[in-house]
Parts: sequence; structure tokens; C-alpha cells
Amino acid sequence: MRTAIIGAGALGLYYGALLQRGGEEVHFLLRRDYDAIMSDGLRVFSIDGDFHLQRVNGHRETDNIGTVDLVVVGLKTFDNNKVYSLIAPLIGPETAVLTLQNGLGNEEYLARSIPAEQILGGVAFLCANRGVPGIVHHLGQGRVRIGAFRPEATDRCRDVAKLFSAAGLNCESVDDLLKTRWEKLVWNIPFNGLCALTGLDVTALLSDPHIRDEISALMTEVATAANAQKISSPIETARFIEQMLTVTESMSHYRPSMMIDRMEGRPLELESIYVEPLRRAQAAGVATPRIELLHALLALGE
Amino acid sequence: MRTAIIGAGALGLYYGALLQRGGEEVHFLLRRDYDAIMSDGLRVFSIDGDFHLQRVNGHRETDNIGTVDLVVVGLKTFDNNKVYSLIAPLIGPETAVLTLQNGLGNEEYLARSIPAEQILGGVAFLCANRGVPGIVHHLGQGRVRIGAFRPEATDRCRDVAKLFSAAGLNCESVDDLLKTRWEKLVWNIPFNGLCALTGLDVTALLSDPHIRDEISALMTEVATAANAQKISSPIETARFIEQMLTVTESMSHYRPSMMIDRMEGRPLELESIYVEPLRRAQAAGVATPRIELLHALLALGE
Repeated sequence: MRTAIIGAGALGLYYGALLQRGGEEVHFLLRRDYDAIMSDGLRVFSIDGDFHLQRVNGHRETDNIGTVDLVVVGLKTFDNNKVYSLIAPLIGPETAVLTLQNGLGNEEYLARSIPAEQILGGVAFLCANRGVPGIVHHLGQGRVRIGAFRPEATDRCRDVAKLFSAAGLNCESVDDLLKTRWEKLVWNIPFNGLCALTGLDVTALLSDPHIRDEISALMTEVATAANAQKISSPIETARFIEQMLTVTESMSHYRPSMMIDRMEGRPLELESIYVEPLRRAQAAGVATPRIELLHALLALGE
Repeated sequence: MRTAIIGAGALGLYYGALLQRGGEEVHFLLRRDYDAIMSDGLRVFSIDGDFHLQRVNGHRETDNIGTVDLVVVGLKTFDNNKVYSLIAPLIGPETAVLTLQNGLGNEEYLARSIPAEQILGGVAFLCANRGVPGIVHHLGQGRVRIGAFRPEATDRCRDVAKLFSAAGLNCESVDDLLKTRWEKLVWNIPFNGLCALTGLDVTALLSDPHIRDEISALMTEVATAANAQKISSPIETARFIEQMLTVTESMSHYRPSMMIDRMEGRPLELESIYVEPLRRAQAAGVATPRIELLHALLALGE
């Protein structure tokens, strides 16, 4: 499968590297890392074992890549207004487009321009950060769950999941993409926001008993909002939160992407991680006072 | 009336200066401002007209002041553990002790050591900041409301209110001190905390529509908690909030005391402004999610 990775942040570089190592033809759209990768290749420092891809198909634009079988979108969601112009040259009638972007509304954004049966979405449980150009650090986890945006894309989704698994990615195809996205938000809404706001990593936040209680309370608001949506089965709130906190305790001093975005002066992904979930919670009549206050404080810095 | 001012921040200096200008014998316990005031007096730059007190009774400790008729406590509440040892030398059986400190629990603190019939409490609606040593800036308002901690102190309270009025202070004696304290918290809880947390003044916060909504929502939580206490009549929430927002709009770029405490590296008055009100809200079964999150974020920086 010819695959294009659009949005070569930590996530795009890491999964693209795994696919190429697994024997797939992978094309990367690169900006910051172009020069480094074209001259020295792409290095992955990973808890699962380091590796180095000497030759990488890097591109400064997508015009010359041609049609591909799979587009993986890893762009920051504040760049969603650019996504279609970037991927249009890559898309034929059989191309699957998989967005691994954060939050809600990304598949809907693609669906403005691309037939729904070609759209897949996914959620990555991945602790990874970019290092200096040409280097990506894989610090923990790596599991990805993908699903069809609409039922018509179900077969395509299974094919992509098989491809990913064959390349050594820990990938699972799910029936309920919406629920999977909300489950991810149970983590993202408290940790991305509180880390970005305070400048403290996940370990520092969890070590403070008041903040730990607030993280649980924020997670409860997200899970309650999720369970008021049309999802296949409810999130078991208490057990799921306990599990999220346990997983996070193992992420020693992890800095979520939004914290790094703020530290490096980039915009924050507020629309997809806060505004759209708040809109859907409100439409379902679920109270979300803590999420609203957290969002307002984050938006103030933008 | 011999009066001692304990805690010569902006509030203590301003009201003490008004009393002395009104002809009362006032003694100030001074720390930072001692040298400046003893050599050059106390200057008040006020929207009601500037004035200068050439000679001021300043003291570095309270031992030599002797018994007074009235002690005004303006200490930061995080210093409450020092309050009794500071005021003990001033107190005779007829001395009234008036705490104008922020938040809840200050009268109760005094009542551990002083008979309840000598304890008064009050709330100052005052925009004032200290300038360089020897100078206090009165930026707006100035009204003070005082009340008896217990009914036995009611007459004493009326006497003090008369004294204050005679000296030109805008002072009112109230029947329900607890309600008055909660009304002040409707302002203090959102503005003190959000200004301290964000480093933005009240005007900057109100100009952001999301934060303005959060301020209203925080005020609603406080008023709801207040109305669940044993107060004489409920706060009319919507009208009161509207009024608070209007008043705050007139406080051009005002920096509340907690914001200045954080900027200058002092502890924050979290116990009296957040912890005790949260405790009483919880005891009354009132949900306070936004206040809890705001408190946790403030406590994280302590």
C-alpha cells in the first residue's frame, strides 16, 4: 500500500516510520524535519527498540506524490482549514483517508470534501515527542484504534487495520469510532489542558491531591457527556477513570502535546478538544462546569 | 476612642488615616512602612482628595501601646495564627476587636481567645493598594459594613459605626454579618482567584467573553452556597451579580489583593477565601465545581 503521512509531528513520524520499516512505501510531507531527514534519514528512539531509516521519501509539498492508497492525517487540528488542499492531490476513488488527529469533528471536516465511505478515524494512545529535526522519541504505549466514519467504510477500515498490524503496529479496528474518540477525551480534556495551563507534567499534577481530585472530576464530566451521546454502550465511568489514572501514573513526567504546543508558542487545539465536545455535551443537556472553566482559562492565553 | 490598627496593608493604613484625620487617637503596628512613616508621615493619594498626616503613632510591636478601645485587624488571614499574640497587650474587658480581614472564619479565630461580645467583623468595599513605603493609594470605593459576631456585641457595633461615620468613613452597621461576608465573597472568589491565577486585572478579565461567563458562573455558585447558609434573607442572585459586574466595570484595571500577593511572592489567602467557604458549601450540600477547580489551581502555586 502506498501511504502518505500528512502532518509529520511525533505521531506522524512514528507511525510512518513503523509502516516503512514493515515494508510499505511511505511518503512523508515534511516541513521542520525536511533537511535533516533527507540528509541523515529518520531516527526513532523507542522503548520498543531504536531504529534508523536511512532513506525516506520526504516531500515539501504533496503535488508530486501522486495518488496513494492511504493518507494518514496527523496535522494539528488548528490547521484543519488547510487539510483538503494538502491531501487533494493524493486522493483517488479508492484512497482511504485516516485522521489520527485529536478530539472531535475531524472526520466531519474531511467529509466536507471527501466521500464518507473513504473516511476513517482513529485514536492513538501514544507517548511520543519530536526531538531535534530527524529524531522522534517514543516514550510509551503506541496502541492505535481505528474505525469507520460511516458504516460504508467498514471494510476499508479492516484492511487498514490488517496493514498496520502486519507492519508491527498495535492496531485494533473498532465498531464505534465515536465512543473511542470520547474515551480518548476522558484523558485529553484534563491532562492536555491542565498541563498546558500550569506548565506542569502529568506526574507533577497527579502528585497534588487537590488537582488529582479535579482530574477525576473533569474525567467524570467527559464520561457523562460521552454517555449522553449515541454510543453503542456506556463508558463505565468509575472503572474507566481508575484505569486512566493508573495508566497515567506509568507515564513518568510525560508532557502532553498541548503543553508542548504552548511552551513552543503554537496555537492550542482548543476547537477539537474542548469547543466541539462542549457543544455536544450542551446539546445533550449535560453540565460541564469544570471543562468550561478550564477551556476559558486556556482560551485566554490564545 | 483609642484605636490600634493591626496589619497596616492598604486597608489598615487607609482606614487608620481617615480615623486619625477625623480626630481619633490612632496607633499603627508597622513593619515595611515604619521608617518611612516615622520620618515623613503617611500620605494618602485618594480619589476623594489627597492628604498627609505629618505625625503618626507608629509602633514596631504592640507591647507599649497599652489598652485601647478598638482594635482594627487588617492582617492577611494567612497570619491568623499570629493575631492573638499581637493584639493581647491591647485588650481590656471593654475593648472591641473588629476584623476587616477577607473571607470566612476570622471572627471564629478571634473567638478562640477573646469573649464573643467583644468581637466585630466587617467587610470593606475598597480599591486601595500600597505604594512605596509611607504612601497608600485609594483608587475607588471605600464603603465598610460592620456587624456583631454574636448578638451580645450589637451595641458595641453601633458605637463603632458611629465613630467611623463621625470620622468621615462611609460605614454602615448591619444586622447579618454572615450574609455581608458571603456577599463580599461573591466578588472575591472569582476576581481574587482569576486575577492571581492569570496575572490579568479585573478589566482584562471582563473583556474576555468566555471568562466573563465563568465569572458569572462562579458568582452563581457562591450565591447559591450563601443562600444555603443561615442568613436572614437570600441574596437575589441574578440582580446581585449584575450589580457586581457593573461595579467592577468601573474599577479600571484594578488589581485585587490576591493578585498583588502572588506578584510579590506572598502566600495567598486561600483558607479564608476558598477553603472555609467550600467547607460550608459542602456541608450545606451545594455543588461548587468551578470554585473547587479554581482553588486547586491556585493551591498548586503555593
